[in-house]
Amino acid sequence: MHAEKIMLAHGSGGTLMRALVEDVFVAGLSEEALSRLDDAASLTIPGSRIAFSTDTYVVTPHFFPGGDIGRLAVCGTVNDVATSGARPLYLSMAVILEEGMAIQDLHRILESMRAAAREANVHIVTGDTKVVERGHGDGIYINTAGIGVLRPGTDLSGSYAREGDVVLLSGTLGDHGITIISCREGLGFEADISSDAAPLAEMCAAVLEAAPDTRCFRDPTRGGLASALNEIATASNVPITVKEADVPVKPQVKGASEMLGYDVFQVANEGKMAAIVPEEQAEAALAAMRGAPYGSDAAIIGRVAGNMPGRVYVETAFGATRIMDMLVGEQLPRIC
Amino acid sequence: MHAEKIMLAHGSGGTLMRALVEDVFVAGLSEEALSRLDDAASLTIPGSRIAFSTDTYVVTPHFFPGGDIGRLAVCGTVNDVATSGARPLYLSMAVILEEGMAIQDLHRILESMRAAAREANVHIVTGDTKVVERGHGDGIYINTAGIGVLRPGTDLSGSYAREGDVVLLSGTLGDHGITIISCREGLGFEADISSDAAPLAEMCAAVLEAAPDTRCFRDPTRGGLASALNEIATASNVPITVKEADVPVKPQVKGASEMLGYDVFQVANEGKMAAIVPEEQAEAALAAMRGAPYGSDAAIIGRVAGNMPGRVYVETAFGATRIMDMLVGEQLPRIC
Repeated sequence: MHAEKIMLAHGSGGTLMRALVEDVFVAGLSEEALSRLDDAASLTIPGSRIAFSTDTYVVTPHFFPGGDIGRLAVCGTVNDVATSGARPLYLSMAVILEEGMAIQDLHRILESMRAAAREANVHIVTGDTKVVERGHGDGIYINTAGIGVLRPGTDLSGSYAREGDVVLLSGTLGDHGITIISCREGLGFEADISSDAAPLAEMCAAVLEAAPDTRCFRDPTRGGLASALNEIATASNVPITVKEADVPVKPQVKGASEMLGYDVFQVANEGKMAAIVPEEQAEAALAAMRGAPYGSDAAIIGRVAGNMPGRVYVETAFGATRIMDMLVGEQLPRIC
Repeated sequence: MHAEKIMLAHGSGGTLMRALVEDVFVAGLSEEALSRLDDAASLTIPGSRIAFSTDTYVVTPHFFPGGDIGRLAVCGTVNDVATSGARPLYLSMAVILEEGMAIQDLHRILESMRAAAREANVHIVTGDTKVVERGHGDGIYINTAGIGVLRPGTDLSGSYAREGDVVLLSGTLGDHGITIISCREGLGFEADISSDAAPLAEMCAAVLEAAPDTRCFRDPTRGGLASALNEIATASNVPITVKEADVPVKPQVKGASEMLGYDVFQVANEGKMAAIVPEEQAEAALAAMRGAPYGSDAAIIGRVAGNMPGRVYVETAFGATRIMDMLVGEQLPRIC
């Protein structure tokens, strides 16, 4: 592998592709299962119920304060699996490379994926590489699919929220989205703000242990907390009310959101978890969140309560109430 | 969903994305698990060993004789899972849509995926949708990841071939690759030739039943049979010799390959399976292949035998022997 740029022949299924897979992917990720080069990985699952999720990552720029597309591709899917209450075990990884991509960048991204997988305690066990012509991609797109194991009895769903339940959020809102827009538009906020990209499976496990009747988790990525809570409100046919003053937001993120005209509830996060738990387990859940990695700023931010089922409300600092709307139209393409 | 073209806002995580997911994807695939709209699917696995595989499909054109990108995305991953000896059960599906894509085409592709999944007896249980700006994609790219269940004791690998084993091929070579090049370049061969895209899990199960000591399966996609057999020869450190006269190739595919200067052993297939089986089980394996869907042209095409370990040889009709090389450089980008 002495090429410096990705060529179409790297996707041919021939000798160059084999060199790319062996010398860059298998070596870079240092995963034993990958080195067998079989078409499928054979895995043992400790249990008979699994969670399965997939996400594709198309973020630009590829590298940003707090992370890169590789860290996102591991953490995002780990978190999606964790929302079901499962312990993430295995990831697949499939990339679409654009002709001309710098192989040096690919090395950096793979190193970041390796580190994130180690941190999240998951293994990347199977993969695929495609190459498209210049002008049909953007350097690299990464898909990961994730498998986790569910303990017997674990059954979470966005449709299980009930009136009186409590809404928890694991930390500050908006860090990822504001970092990306700042990098992309050269706004300079990223001196003070960085992406929150982080794996949250350990946090979810701790919350489930402390609050076994947790109704559901949601990681508020694209569309932000507004989409996450509106989905739950709709699926459960309940109202939800969030107290604005209780929602953690960094001052510099708040300032940037206001300057850009963004509603911070609609801005993407990549290292935050929302949870709906029964009232009597809320304090235990909060303590578990705060004690888990990336959860020190966790807070109780609201309740499953309000006027109209299916609606999400924000109680402002001045006591007024407004609707927490889902994003209409497009805020920022390619945020994740 | 009254839009006719994909817009960036369809990837926003907001209201338009929700409408696209519900009205197009969930409705088009008619899968119960998808309609829950949770971030991960919860699944029951009958057994504790699974196979896991992933592939991204970037083929152009999206529609071609014998199939389309949707049929490929289901069959290709089903076949990758089946190569491990597993019974495929579940697929994830993640799409990258390019701004401006006709939603009518998306409907057609989803209908094709629904039909292929039904034929292959698998369920599409979780998904993701991203949208990229015009000029950063090509209408649609589809990733599928697949999970299958392995029976206790099933353990296949490209590294298990032994001298004296027999090489089987389930049907004619080259149909998919020649169809795609013909469509793309307007060569007109596709009047007589169509893609072989097909799900082969039932065939693999029948072969395993008849020949329980089967060493491995490989579906000869990108890089063709040459890549599949070279991978096995290298992984097992054995020589393999194929008898050219015994390899089924349609006359029109043979003619087209010669005209284009292609080695048909290097041309992609999407509905063929190669198998390495011990000699004493070869006839039983062949009968099982021929009796399975898409296997009527199956043949014994060679042996694990020859001069140098790691090399693949072709014995020509005239008794000469040449090396079956892996593709060097690029034959045809975006074949699958």
